[in-house]
Amino acid sequence: MPSDLRLDHLLRAAARVFARDGYHRTSMRDLALASGMSLAGMYYYVRGKEELLTLIQERCFDQVMDGARVAVAQSRDPAERLQAFIRHHVTFFADHMAEMKVLSHEADSLTGNAAQAMRSKKKAYSTLLADLVGKANTELTAEERRVRAYALFGMMNWIYTWYRPDGALKPAELADQVCTLALHGISLHEDAHDAGRR
Amino acid sequence: MPSDLRLDHLLRAAARVFARDGYHRTSMRDLALASGMSLAGMYYYVRGKEELLTLIQERCFDQVMDGARVAVAQSRDPAERLQAFIRHHVTFFADHMAEMKVLSHEADSLTGNAAQAMRSKKKAYSTLLADLVGKANTELTAEERRVRAYALFGMMNWIYTWYRPDGALKPAELADQVCTLALHGISLHEDAHDAGRR
Repeated sequence: MPSDLRLDHLLRAAARVFARDGYHRTSMRDLALASGMSLAGMYYYVRGKEELLTLIQERCFDQVMDGARVAVAQSRDPAERLQAFIRHHVTFFADHMAEMKVLSHEADSLTGNAAQAMRSKKKAYSTLLADLVGKANTELTAEERRVRAYALFGMMNWIYTWYRPDGALKPAELADQVCTLALHGISLHEDAHDAGRR
Repeated sequence: MPSDLRLDHLLRAAARVFARDGYHRTSMRDLALASGMSLAGMYYYVRGKEELLTLIQERCFDQVMDGARVAVAQSRDPAERLQAFIRHHVTFFADHMAEMKVLSHEADSLTGNAAQAMRSKKKAYSTLLADLVGKANTELTAEERRVRAYALFGMMNWIYTWYRPDGALKPAELADQVCTLALHGISLHEDAHDAGRR
């Protein structure tokens, strides 16, 4: 296997083990077992467990950020752009459940420069969503845009705790449901919609 | 301090340490230091760390469940009942951020009977929310009610990752914003509202 494919393989295996057992309970020996690589083979690619966690988080985040920018650029309609972001985020993570859990659950496990770099990436991604929210509803204040962006991330990221991609609910259907809730809420009646606005 | 107050004190201190450092990285010795109790004093109340985690999660969940039932019973209007549930959940957890993080983040750390008991409690609580969602929008299928309930829990529980109760945004204002988003979504325009309706 070429060198970069072996690293990809190692990162995927490590993400699965971190997701299942937790980062702090996992040893390099566990990762060797799960990846089928030798300890020496793994240390050829990374200095240790924290570098693996860093690479999983950074690569996954770079991919989701690039994908979101492309998805959003397909439309100029604000509501459609917001839906495109949500649909991309949900379907991407439904395809990368282990990485999603690691990103969500092990956010505090990085330290130093790696933690700082991830915070910057996350901030850029949050700002992108908050801007889309603001374009979709121009009545919102900056604070309201920020809170709604975090609430939407909660709605989407929490999926790792309950969703099974191999179940009856397909990722695209899940994304549809999350979009409908995010754009229009639970309410059925227009009067309730108007009364509760803002 | 009377015995039951000392246990309350120990549970609060343990929740703070578990929230800050993670359950698996915390020892009984760390908890003794944080609570100001001796190891022998702690073992008078609990058999060990897992029983502390169990008690924190069970007590917190029983409180939030009882509070939700009372809050919901104040109205007969479906949208108001749904809002009352959300408002109660958000404000309760804004007042119990450490316990909230422990409930969300250490859900998988319980084992055996304690894990089973918590799963039952969570199922009853999820079912309550899914029923309220179904009453607020009678067009939803059972599956859609279930997915929306999980999405709402995500929106609310994710708060532990970003919200600071001592900041400018007060818990009651946060609850208002989450209610508005949950009931009516981001959309501004009625036409968008109608186009995306399921």
